[in-house]
Amino acid sequence: ALYNCTIMNLDYDNIENQLFLEEERRMSYLGFRCLEISRWVVCGWIGFLTGLIACFIDIAVEELAGFKYQVVKENIEKFTEVGGLSISLLLWAVLNAAIVMVGAIIVAYFEPIAAGSGIPQIKCYLNGIKIPRVVRLKTLVVKVCGVICSVVGGLAVGKEGPMIHSGAVVAAGVSQGRSTSLKKDFKIFEYFRRDTEKRDFVSAGAAAGVSAAFGAPVGGVLFSLEEGASFWNQMLTWRIFFASMISTFTLNFFLSIYHKNTGDLSSPGLINFGRFEGDSVAYNLYEIPLFILMGAIGGLLGALFNILNYWLTIFRIRYVHRPCLQVMEAMLVAAVTATVSFTMIYFSNDCQPLGPEHAEEYPLQLFCADGEYNSMATAFFNTPERSVRSLFHNQAGTYNPLTLGLFTLTYFFLACWTYGLAVSAGVFIPSLLIGAAWGRLFGILLAYITPNSVSKWADPGKYALIGAAAQLGGIVRMTLSLTVIMVEATGNVTYGFPIMLVLMTAKIVGDYIVEGLYDIHIKLQSVPFLHWEAPATSHWLTAREVMSSPVTCLNRIEKVGTIVDTLSNTSTKHNGFPVVVQPAKLCGLILRSQLIVLLKHKVFVELARSRLTHRKLQLKDFRDAYPRFPPIQSIHVSQDERECMMDLTEFMNPTPYTVPQETSLPRVFKLFRALGLRHLVVVDDENRVVGLVTRKDLARYHLGKHGLEELQLAQT
Amino acid sequence: ALYNCTIMNLDYDNIENQLFLEEERRMSYLGFRCLEISRWVVCGWIGFLTGLIACFIDIAVEELAGFKYQVVKENIEKFTEVGGLSISLLLWAVLNAAIVMVGAIIVAYFEPIAAGSGIPQIKCYLNGIKIPRVVRLKTLVVKVCGVICSVVGGLAVGKEGPMIHSGAVVAAGVSQGRSTSLKKDFKIFEYFRRDTEKRDFVSAGAAAGVSAAFGAPVGGVLFSLEEGASFWNQMLTWRIFFASMISTFTLNFFLSIYHKNTGDLSSPGLINFGRFEGDSVAYNLYEIPLFILMGAIGGLLGALFNILNYWLTIFRIRYVHRPCLQVMEAMLVAAVTATVSFTMIYFSNDCQPLGPEHAEEYPLQLFCADGEYNSMATAFFNTPERSVRSLFHNQAGTYNPLTLGLFTLTYFFLACWTYGLAVSAGVFIPSLLIGAAWGRLFGILLAYITPNSVSKWADPGKYALIGAAAQLGGIVRMTLSLTVIMVEATGNVTYGFPIMLVLMTAKIVGDYIVEGLYDIHIKLQSVPFLHWEAPATSHWLTAREVMSSPVTCLNRIEKVGTIVDTLSNTSTKHNGFPVVVQPAKLCGLILRSQLIVLLKHKVFVELARSRLTHRKLQLKDFRDAYPRFPPIQSIHVSQDERECMMDLTEFMNPTPYTVPQETSLPRVFKLFRALGLRHLVVVDDENRVVGLVTRKDLARYHLGKHGLEELQLAQT
Repeated sequence: ALYNCTIMNLDYDNIENQLFLEEERRMSYLGFRCLEISRWVVCGWIGFLTGLIACFIDIAVEELAGFKYQVVKENIEKFTEVGGLSISLLLWAVLNAAIVMVGAIIVAYFEPIAAGSGIPQIKCYLNGIKIPRVVRLKTLVVKVCGVICSVVGGLAVGKEGPMIHSGAVVAAGVSQGRSTSLKKDFKIFEYFRRDTEKRDFVSAGAAAGVSAAFGAPVGGVLFSLEEGASFWNQMLTWRIFFASMISTFTLNFFLSIYHKNTGDLSSPGLINFGRFEGDSVAYNLYEIPLFILMGAIGGLLGALFNILNYWLTIFRIRYVHRPCLQVMEAMLVAAVTATVSFTMIYFSNDCQPLGPEHAEEYPLQLFCADGEYNSMATAFFNTPERSVRSLFHNQAGTYNPLTLGLFTLTYFFLACWTYGLAVSAGVFIPSLLIGAAWGRLFGILLAYITPNSVSKWADPGKYALIGAAAQLGGIVRMTLSLTVIMVEATGNVTYGFPIMLVLMTAKIVGDYIVEGLYDIHIKLQSVPFLHWEAPATSHWLTAREVMSSPVTCLNRIEKVGTIVDTLSNTSTKHNGFPVVVQPAKLCGLILRSQLIVLLKHKVFVELARSRLTHRKLQLKDFRDAYPRFPPIQSIHVSQDERECMMDLTEFMNPTPYTVPQETSLPRVFKLFRALGLRHLVVVDDENRVVGLVTRKDLARYHLGKHGLEELQLAQT
Repeated sequence: ALYNCTIMNLDYDNIENQLFLEEERRMSYLGFRCLEISRWVVCGWIGFLTGLIACFIDIAVEELAGFKYQVVKENIEKFTEVGGLSISLLLWAVLNAAIVMVGAIIVAYFEPIAAGSGIPQIKCYLNGIKIPRVVRLKTLVVKVCGVICSVVGGLAVGKEGPMIHSGAVVAAGVSQGRSTSLKKDFKIFEYFRRDTEKRDFVSAGAAAGVSAAFGAPVGGVLFSLEEGASFWNQMLTWRIFFASMISTFTLNFFLSIYHKNTGDLSSPGLINFGRFEGDSVAYNLYEIPLFILMGAIGGLLGALFNILNYWLTIFRIRYVHRPCLQVMEAMLVAAVTATVSFTMIYFSNDCQPLGPEHAEEYPLQLFCADGEYNSMATAFFNTPERSVRSLFHNQAGTYNPLTLGLFTLTYFFLACWTYGLAVSAGVFIPSLLIGAAWGRLFGILLAYITPNSVSKWADPGKYALIGAAAQLGGIVRMTLSLTVIMVEATGNVTYGFPIMLVLMTAKIVGDYIVEGLYDIHIKLQSVPFLHWEAPATSHWLTAREVMSSPVTCLNRIEKVGTIVDTLSNTSTKHNGFPVVVQPAKLCGLILRSQLIVLLKHKVFVELARSRLTHRKLQLKDFRDAYPRFPPIQSIHVSQDERECMMDLTEFMNPTPYTVPQETSLPRVFKLFRALGLRHLVVVDDENRVVGLVTRKDLARYHLGKHGLEELQLAQT
């Protein structure tokens, strides 16, 4: 609904026209080696820059949040004895709202696409849908500033999700060797200026982002593969892994300098779950049913979260679509978050002794006795990353059950309200935090109800980890990649098995009720997202039924006027046109973007003679125009020129993939998805064009409650 | 060269004929859900059984090797003082040779395919090449017994590689719900009796094998993907991961019972690198160049290993092909291994104090003073897994440099000689052991030459690990999966970055000289192995040049005599025949195996009337015949029947994938590889059949030193 008018699809199928083949044939083996090396160099840069950005975000958040909490803490301490804590509350709420306002304004007014975590958008991109402006430099700048404001502003958000988007933007920029926004062309990597190559680099960027966010290079690779890859290629995967490794290493190295222990490479990600070591990490066989139970709870709570957020998003699409309203809503959420937190802290009487080894950065004494601190404040009066870590590692007894229960309840609703605001922010950390809270509660209750000898193993930190996994799995429904991310973030492979079980249970239970959060948001944008396989019961359908027909074909030598009219015709939705020789026999496929470049350079048969003095049109001309091809309206064609002819032979793809009309939908789907096609020509048994299958034709079939359903999709 | 006559290719493309479509259309949504659930159940069983087998191998090796070393140790102790250690040597050598003889006899005489690690064979299978008998029950039994004999027999081998093969066999067996060897059909999982489904399960089995071998479930998944997947599917990957997890969990659980601490789930694999914890695990920035240097050394040594083994394999193919010679060679190697080990131990005067916390299972005192033990013996007089662990974890100073140097040298040649013998055995552990030895040596030398303050970080165990990774990477050249396997086996993610760097360097250096060991062995079998992409410089070639032509076509309604003659004609190499309507217009594709089933059931047009009483041929008939279709010679067709007609319409695949003649090789390759095809029909622009592209046509192009080369491949 949001980006209807301008959604494009990516083309992962090389246009193997004569120009392309000539270039490839001219290139020596050494040339290909150089290309290969430059791919590695690009991946290295992607990793390095992504790591730097993560580092910048982390340091900025640390410094600014530290400053904010210091100010508020001093204020609270001042007024605790005097009375008049409402002033502290006001200060806190106003500070938060002001900071969030900045973040919301840049997002809502300058780059709305930078809102949220960006993961749904990157999923779409890797799936082959190009949402406009999603990988632009401006988006990156807004995203980075936005996420700093949201986290410092105390919203129930994390800075990890947006890293994935940031990495993808970095990749799209570095790999093209130029920035169209800055109007700067470095004249390098020109070979990579096409969808096929760019997608591969964006995968690497997304992986580098995950890797920097969670210190999980393998998890990053798996994320990219899970979300994007249709075709697995060993060298590509290895390069993606390289980018991931460089990214986590860069972040780690610069953070070690910032933390003044240069060279200590032990904090590889933005979020660090801390070390799970020693005896407490082991689990026993009889705990496994408990873990599965927690997985089911996570699935249920996750589904609830998603349903609430779905309603909220529908509401927002209807009523909160003006930027100023969006900014106001964000400020309201920030103020409410501060108020609720304050109230919770205020009415909590969970005082804990301030141990010498305590990890709390800003212990609030409030009404506690000297040498004690308010336990609720460690959860609320802190950056969410630190709260997660405290829940994982603080000793048993640090939190009382009531604190945890209340915290879970309030944070659940706050996080649910926050996701979808016009601010840059991720849902990973809030989910982990909710899960860690109820998981710890679960562990504590378990210790209460079991005999003493058993309660030894009911380490609340362990249950907090399992709960966090369950809640996150219940909300986002990722599978293998999430397991690996969680394992890498804990730095310990022992928990692999329980985390897998928990995520599996959460996914099964959750999927039974409602889709994952990202899928819900993708669906709300009604983009033609292709899943892994065609719906199981779609063997009834054949290419004949799913294809778009009739389809506009062009002749191999076509009148310029016809081409201009075809392109200008708004009812012609397609971006590719089969090229035919009479009678309707398929001989190639040409893209809208190619035709526009041809028109712009006036490659007409009649001008061929004078073109002897002109230079011949080269692949470079297409690459220079990539990816922002001008609209047809901007190209002026005179009435005389309309009568000229254009020879498409050299430019069309002479061997497009085709299927016969009787091919079943799953078979068409498999070909389309495996090769990342954009257009698939349907031919009859005389090789005559009868239709065209596009992404949208395939994406609209969906397995619903009542069998196969057709969806309404945005125009592409 | 070895299996020339009978190599088949797998067909990962569903035969979407009318029977298939009717079945799929009849199936309800619930039916598909049940299928999905049974896939999970099958994967669970695959994991469980693979884990059990690993457990059985481990316990058998522990018990038998323990017994053997105890006997030899007592004998040595007896004769050390009396003199006459040559008797001990004789005892050791004879024991080893006898045990290895058993292992070699069962392999050489009963199931030669069970020789070696089986990884090249599984790589071929996942690539789409079916080497006969590779996934049979008999192969599994021989493999398991063989690997126990080889390891107990003291050869320089590991039991990890064969686990991958074992897992694959288990998968192929369980998923089919029957055993053709045992003539037992459980009448379950009949839907899975086709290449598409079976391959997916074999991937899961291979992953479960890796997982059990190294305690590396994620590494297992990545191994399967790296070697096999052409098309990545989220649910499939998740199922593979499930099988891997169950496998490592099962192994862990049963081993914990065996080791009498039930429920302690901390030894997830056959090989356990032990815990790398504490301060010694950290590495510093300035160590990275050293790691890269070690990677280069590993690459060089690995290439040397591969070249030597290549020559040896050539020699073996020429001269050692009779089973009795193979058994004798294996016995010779066993005896020589024992003799060399004994000599090394005998002449070593590296005595180390026997600490209270020593981990050596069988400390040999020999000529050392009381309370000391012979350090060379910990490396040689031990199962290789234990030796690796000692090299990783024994304190600095446990080994002196001379011991390590001599050990590296001798073990290198022993391992190189051993790989390729007619015994079931893997090369993983010997590689790790060689690498750990020179890596530790490297670390010790480093500590010598650097000032005292620096030598603190030169922990020899750390360098042993890096050396092991470098050597293994230099030999097998796996990338991402090996990184993850190493990281999971160490149980610590800290070393991820250096291990990646080392493996990358080793691969680059090694690839410059010679291919990886598995690739060499695959090439020596001259099977049509498809790499990830077509050679970079192959844009010159088109489908017209690579295709086989002319191709035998069948009419849609064809005379039985013609079909029988076509199938009996030995010059018709193909297993698929385009079906045409006159004049040569493509209307389908039918497989040799289908035709054989049709002939066997006498599905002739003339008998159609009488078939009213007969039942109609169903998909079940094809499934029952899968995968061992009878040869054409076994089917009797009378002279009268030869005159009958056969209607192929219902059975042929009506929508085979096609390409035009002008399609470039990379484009053909991409389609073929991505969809796992077996036959690709080449048509002209009138949709007339002009040729057929098979795996062999594509696999023969290879990028050699002098540009594009054509290989000689075995007949398929």
